Amino acid sequence: MAIVQITLVRGRSPEQKAAIAAAINAAMVNIAGSPADHINIVFHEIERDNWAIAGQMLPDYVRNTGKG
Amino acid sequence: MAIVQITLVRGRSPEQKAAIAAAINAAMVNIAGSPADHINIVFHEIERDNWAIAGQMLPDYVRNTGKG
Amino acid sequence: MAIVQITLVRGRSPEQKAAIAAAINAAMVNIAGSPADHINIVFHEIERDNWAIAGQMLPDYVRNTGKG
Amino acid sequence: MAIVQITLVRGRSPEQKAAIAAAINAAMVNIAGSPADHINIVFHEIERDNWAIAGQMLPDYVRNTGKG
Amino acid sequence: MAIVQITLVRGRSPEQKAAIAAAINAAMVNIAGSPADHINIVFHEIERDNWAIAGQMLPDYVRNTGKG
Amino acid sequence: MAIVQITLVRGRSPEQKAAIAAAINAAMVNIAGSPADHINIVFHEIERDNWAIAGQMLPDYVRNTGKG
Repeated sequence: MAIVQITLVRGRSPEQKAAIAAAINAAMVNIAGSPADHINIVFHEIERDNWAIAGQMLPDYVRNTGKG
Repeated sequence: MAIVQITLVRGRSPEQKAAIAAAINAAMVNIAGSPADHINIVFHEIERDNWAIAGQMLPDYVRNTGKG
Repeated sequence: MAIVQITLVRGRSPEQKAAIAAAINAAMVNIAGSPADHINIVFHEIERDNWAIAGQMLPDYVRNTGKG
Repeated sequence: MAIVQITLVRGRSPEQKAAIAAAINAAMVNIAGSPADHINIVFHEIERDNWAIAGQMLPDYVRNTGKG
Repeated sequence: MAIVQITLVRGRSPEQKAAIAAAINAAMVNIAGSPADHINIVFHEIERDNWAIAGQMLPDYVRNTGKG
Repeated sequence: MAIVQITLVRGRSPEQKAAIAAAINAAMVNIAGSPADHINIVFHEIERDNWAIAGQMLPDYVRNTGKG
């Protein structure tokens, strides 16, 4: 039994999310031994103006630091 | 004091969500003894292409397994 | 498919938690139409000194307000 | 290292959210000693008909109690 | 930027958790293009009597269904 | 109404957590206009070997990078 909640900035394609889910599921099955039918993976897509690092909303953080 | 976060596939009606909230609140008040005014219940509605089971996004999982 | 995460103060008995889980599961099956085998309910038990309301940790909040 | 997830009713302005993030970040840096570059703050904005208190969806709760 | 929260039953070894984290991180970097230094992965380990499926606490669910 | 969930490495004192809660509560009241009695702040304290950055569990990440 496993619940994997992925919080990330909106903008990945359905193909990217499907590939991420497949890779995480494989890790949970092969390493943790979780039964596949009970592995739930959920993506929470967040707008860039709802995420802050170092106290700066992402658009500002990226502009100010060049990271991200 | 209780926080109940319900992550589910988008698509329930306001009436369904209100009935679920009422039932969960009743359980928390009657069984756990939580004070009703401090029971927060939040629904996080997820698109079907943001949820995977067994490493397959839900539309694929349902088509492949007949479940769901 | 549903994930129900219940964050509550530590201190309920196994029997109370089992009864809460059964009641929530029944609501999700009967009202939301979720398949029971894909309803995961998880309790996160929190120590009283890790929870604040109105900016006061719970032991203080309860003492100051008489609530809780 | 800190992750701060803020679940709140939709409706705050970008300026309000930026100010909240800055204040929380300052608290985490100054009080907890977390390194700023590893403090992630995420806002989850919830529609009013996805949030219940005391078993009543927020529009009903506010109308019935005058709170909120 | 990504936050991956893994809720699972307690009982994996440090080596298993390290291997899961490495695999998930690789997926997030290679598929999602997230910068590694901003990928936080957190394990929430849950006791078996704090997790229910189909309304039954895990020890009961496993005994009754043979799954898990 | 607001729920603030703070996930951080275990090790802060009760006084630090109380001061963080007070600061966050003040921000939510003063900036967001949330009613104090409905602001729940919860700390989830995580062991260092349950948190990874850049795919390395925290003790390794700190040793390898000097950060943290």
